[in-house]
Amino acid sequence: MTGGGLDRFFHPAAVAVVGASERPESVGYALLKNLLFGSMRAEPSATARGDGFPGPVYAVNPKGGTILGQPVYASLAAISRPVDLIVVAIPPRFIPALMPEAAAAGVGHAIIISAGFSEMGDEGRRLQDEMVAAARHGGIRLIGPNCLGVLRPSARLNASFAESPPPAGAVGLLSQSGALITGVISFAQREGFGLSAAVSLGSKADVEDEDVLTWLAADDETRCVALYVESFPEPRSFLEVARGLAARKAVVALKGGATAAGARAASSHTGSLAGSAAAYRAAFAQNGVLQAETIGDLIDWSRALAHQPLPAGNRLAVVTNAGGPGVLSADEASRRGLELAELSPATFAALDEVLPEVWSRNNPVDVIGDATPERYRDALNILGRAPEVDAIVVIMTQQAMTAPLETAEAIAAAHEEPSWSKPLLCSFLGLVGTEVGSLLDRRGVPEYNLPESAVGALAALVRRARWLARTEPPPPVDLPHPDPDLDAARRLLREAREAGHDNLPLDRAREVLAAAGIRYNRSAAAADAEEAVRCAEEIGYPVVLKVISPDVLHKSDVGGVELGVVDAAAVRRACRRIVERVGARQPGARLGGFTVEQQVSGTEIIVGVSRDPDFGPLLMVGMGGIFVEVYKDVAFRLVPLTRRDALAMIDEIEAQPLLDGARHRPRLDRGELAEILLRVSALIEAVPAIAELDVNPLVITAEGLVAIDARVIAGG
Amino acid sequence: MTGGGLDRFFHPAAVAVVGASERPESVGYALLKNLLFGSMRAEPSATARGDGFPGPVYAVNPKGGTILGQPVYASLAAISRPVDLIVVAIPPRFIPALMPEAAAAGVGHAIIISAGFSEMGDEGRRLQDEMVAAARHGGIRLIGPNCLGVLRPSARLNASFAESPPPAGAVGLLSQSGALITGVISFAQREGFGLSAAVSLGSKADVEDEDVLTWLAADDETRCVALYVESFPEPRSFLEVARGLAARKAVVALKGGATAAGARAASSHTGSLAGSAAAYRAAFAQNGVLQAETIGDLIDWSRALAHQPLPAGNRLAVVTNAGGPGVLSADEASRRGLELAELSPATFAALDEVLPEVWSRNNPVDVIGDATPERYRDALNILGRAPEVDAIVVIMTQQAMTAPLETAEAIAAAHEEPSWSKPLLCSFLGLVGTEVGSLLDRRGVPEYNLPESAVGALAALVRRARWLARTEPPPPVDLPHPDPDLDAARRLLREAREAGHDNLPLDRAREVLAAAGIRYNRSAAAADAEEAVRCAEEIGYPVVLKVISPDVLHKSDVGGVELGVVDAAAVRRACRRIVERVGARQPGARLGGFTVEQQVSGTEIIVGVSRDPDFGPLLMVGMGGIFVEVYKDVAFRLVPLTRRDALAMIDEIEAQPLLDGARHRPRLDRGELAEILLRVSALIEAVPAIAELDVNPLVITAEGLVAIDARVIAGG
Repeated sequence: MTGGGLDRFFHPAAVAVVGASERPESVGYALLKNLLFGSMRAEPSATARGDGFPGPVYAVNPKGGTILGQPVYASLAAISRPVDLIVVAIPPRFIPALMPEAAAAGVGHAIIISAGFSEMGDEGRRLQDEMVAAARHGGIRLIGPNCLGVLRPSARLNASFAESPPPAGAVGLLSQSGALITGVISFAQREGFGLSAAVSLGSKADVEDEDVLTWLAADDETRCVALYVESFPEPRSFLEVARGLAARKAVVALKGGATAAGARAASSHTGSLAGSAAAYRAAFAQNGVLQAETIGDLIDWSRALAHQPLPAGNRLAVVTNAGGPGVLSADEASRRGLELAELSPATFAALDEVLPEVWSRNNPVDVIGDATPERYRDALNILGRAPEVDAIVVIMTQQAMTAPLETAEAIAAAHEEPSWSKPLLCSFLGLVGTEVGSLLDRRGVPEYNLPESAVGALAALVRRARWLARTEPPPPVDLPHPDPDLDAARRLLREAREAGHDNLPLDRAREVLAAAGIRYNRSAAAADAEEAVRCAEEIGYPVVLKVISPDVLHKSDVGGVELGVVDAAAVRRACRRIVERVGARQPGARLGGFTVEQQVSGTEIIVGVSRDPDFGPLLMVGMGGIFVEVYKDVAFRLVPLTRRDALAMIDEIEAQPLLDGARHRPRLDRGELAEILLRVSALIEAVPAIAELDVNPLVITAEGLVAIDARVIAGG
Repeated sequence: MTGGGLDRFFHPAAVAVVGASERPESVGYALLKNLLFGSMRAEPSATARGDGFPGPVYAVNPKGGTILGQPVYASLAAISRPVDLIVVAIPPRFIPALMPEAAAAGVGHAIIISAGFSEMGDEGRRLQDEMVAAARHGGIRLIGPNCLGVLRPSARLNASFAESPPPAGAVGLLSQSGALITGVISFAQREGFGLSAAVSLGSKADVEDEDVLTWLAADDETRCVALYVESFPEPRSFLEVARGLAARKAVVALKGGATAAGARAASSHTGSLAGSAAAYRAAFAQNGVLQAETIGDLIDWSRALAHQPLPAGNRLAVVTNAGGPGVLSADEASRRGLELAELSPATFAALDEVLPEVWSRNNPVDVIGDATPERYRDALNILGRAPEVDAIVVIMTQQAMTAPLETAEAIAAAHEEPSWSKPLLCSFLGLVGTEVGSLLDRRGVPEYNLPESAVGALAALVRRARWLARTEPPPPVDLPHPDPDLDAARRLLREAREAGHDNLPLDRAREVLAAAGIRYNRSAAAADAEEAVRCAEEIGYPVVLKVISPDVLHKSDVGGVELGVVDAAAVRRACRRIVERVGARQPGARLGGFTVEQQVSGTEIIVGVSRDPDFGPLLMVGMGGIFVEVYKDVAFRLVPLTRRDALAMIDEIEAQPLLDGARHRPRLDRGELAEILLRVSALIEAVPAIAELDVNPLVITAEGLVAIDARVIAGG
């Protein structure tokens, strides 16, 4: 019994390959060779193990014999020395029975490489359940099945069938796809960056993402966690762990199936439902996980996050010996939300001292095509001390006089000065994979093929710095909203369900949201046109008239709304027109009269809640009205959310100038909107019978936010 | 005298380096060594020239002696054998005098590497003018100054100080930045793709982009032109040539300074004003030039365009031996506007025959981790014939059983089948730069590091195919708009200028646009509130009231607009409120009464014209009203434009559902809007005194487009 810890997966005392094989094209051979010699490419030798795992490695196969110079044991029991980790590549039907045998041999950890379990339908799923039950009974933790395995380069452990290991380093890689791991390893080898660990989780029968994240959080070698995921069995539990991890170390996640097309592809290939893209995006944003869109971003960002300090702000200086790449860096910085630092007179004067007369006198700092290593070093020393510069990207292109290796050395030396404190990334166009690039990477300065990649990675550092620096603001005072009454909301939902209303009548929907403390424009229900006139006179013109019907979901779609109704005659006319249009467009819809509402105008917000199959309730805020479907200028967060989350999602709305009161419109009080989001979040938590909800529009008025329409769908 | 042709820059009979030097770190040495031996990396030999230029190469330097085993001539005259191309690296002050000497020696083409001309202020500019005049007098064409030089790999001509040449190939590279060329060469060497030519134009004293484009258009080796530009001396002339070229060959342009920050960087480093990003974007879109945003895209797209046929549509099939990268390809396809082909039952059946039972039965076609070369080949043969598939991306990741080289061979063989006709791109994660990648590239199948790059390149092929397939639609019939009267517009502008009105009064602005055939809502001008009431009674309620003032640019900003005015009392009230607000917000503004307008409501479009300093009049169309500044959902084209351009720019608007009449709004007649754009384009061409113009909003009504407000600024 080894308990639940994962450490032995990465630091076993002794390893056995169950299913070791002498056929060089088999997985059982690859696993044994990788453990013994570190790499499939190694020249096997019976005496020297080279870069192989330094502890005992045993081959197990009932056939016996020798493989790669090693004796083959017929069973785990036959080894008769301690084994704590097994790597398994035998047909799946034999694996459940292997578990008690392994437990008896003292094994606490097993990596199941074999495929043929849950991805193979019901029978495979039964076999998987059987294997897991047997493992649990024997106190064995399982990684896999259907996975590539585990690599721990610093321990010279290649318990996988990856052809060769990456250099040891500071990025911990966790992937649902083994192919992503082999791909990243190829990049790591060529571009000279290192991994602290690589774990392929496959079908996640036992060990899940959150287990590995917990281990990586405690692992001293890991400074950044890179993650490829398609779906989680328990998304909420993953998030809790990810949030704790992100507080200590940078986490970058690439979500496969981030688009509808990708999600369809993912669901077919893993047999698991890929969560909705918006929910994942919200979950990552809310928990400090940086979401990459491409493999390139995942790699580029992780390298920077593992090796560079975080910047104090977003003001970038570019040092370059060529104009064009400098210009392109500035373009990319602008696209990524970074600013080019405005250099101070003092910095200008200092640069004037060390640079030739024709230098750009601008940022990008063009140190000119004939720049020497000393010139780069001098410019870096000055920019490293300049308080107006938060981060630096250095570009070098091969020109006639360029001394790439010496320049790399000068950059690395500047970076190693004790006073150096800013992030520094390099791009030596086209020199990646040469000695120049690896010198920098070895010295902790990530070097990228393309300047755009360096700038993109820097933007990730800025986002991480902002996440860590976030603070929880105090609640606002004196809100013009009534106190929430969650008991009333519960009662309303119960009544609606009893009455068979899944889509709550408008008046009930408004009451539910009023119970969450949301304020409405004045309104009244009228049975007919004459009553509507009386209501309108009381509310005050102009008013809005809307059809009341249990059968109509989107009133404006069926012509059930009249705006700007200004007097009694107009009210009668509007009622008549509504009845005509609804009758024509949705024949048979039951009509229950009209609501008469105070017409409130201003910028329109939408607040909504939907249910994600993986993550549960998902809160949305954004620009409302007709534009919500066109520009989709909305942001999502998972329920429950903090005040900080609420403010962050408001900040994600693109149309900030409208929120700020462009063109003399009333200005949004962000604290008030955040409060409404928190109340809706609390409502959803307290009343799980609410399946969906929309407040649209929520109008920004001079007197605060006023809701006009609401939709509540019961369910669950 | 060789005339104006550029051919001798690429295919000289004999070359001389003027300013050849024996100092290995000098440009004069690099140029000579590159010409003699092809590469700075070559081991020089007095007897064998290896990969050097096969024709005569002479060294010229008044000091004489020998360099790299070659005799050094004191002058061009001293060579006393024909020389047609010189490469010049001597101090700039000596270069004007070199020109007559070169002309006398029969030189018709000179590449001026030396810097120190127009980028060095007035004196440098004078020297440059002197050099150009002397060259023109002697019938010499100049490339440069301040450039890297020219490479023609197939002719083994490296007339540059680039350290080594790229492989010979089909991408012609033209760059304002020499560093971009050396960067691309590094990539080409590592990733195994080739260039037909690389030209660094530097300060463009004589030969300009359009000259080189004309040459590349006629060059049989060049199948795709890749372009890095920051600015053009004569943008309109460039566009004419680019359009002609794009009709025959793919053109990809990377514009440095495509963002405001980038433009500032560019303008400081070249001393030339970088054109506005929107104008360049419009110019490229209108002339069939594909605009890349990053160096990565420029390279990725060019490789695909040079080597692969164009697809018939945008339906992509992905073949992969690993799920994760397949999912990520689907995500990228979705982001890039490609569709994953829906495989037909026939294709499914055929794939079932050749793939293992557990294949994905979906697109991406997952051929499973143990895929053999034959399995890849079989899948490709089937998808190559499937009519529902327009293009194919193949992904291979290194797994235990993978035979990368044999798989590459199988893919190349499938691609070489005579019946093969679809674009095919590959990504073997992390295998770029290995034998596997270069095998594919040599056989004409571009192979990319990352699947996202392959998908991005495929999207470029789709865009090019669409450009070539575009057709000019016929003009619409029965437009509800009056015929244009351009003479009236000219007269109105003349009168406005005479009256000292740069910002035309609203009534005149409306008349100008009415003269272009644009229809307005009913309106009238009233001197005071009582006249406004009479006008409103005539026009019919509801009406809109607006202040008339020569001093107010944005009426709504100063409270000068009242909407939804419904009766006489409301008119009087509205007039009073307007006067109060304008007086308060813009004290001193002269008030000239009110316009009274029929209130028209519906989706609001904006049509505008501004003047770009480089390209001249730039036409804009997009979503109008308050959202124009927030979402900037607008498209630009240069004036004049064709009907096809007009329709294409309408298609670029994001809010297509609103144009299509979402929520029972009136639907846009695209032919009618295109006609208005063409009329405005014709107006701007006919009346150059119009500096700027806005029709905002132009409302989509059931009776067609109705303009409500207009702004015309005279200038020029």
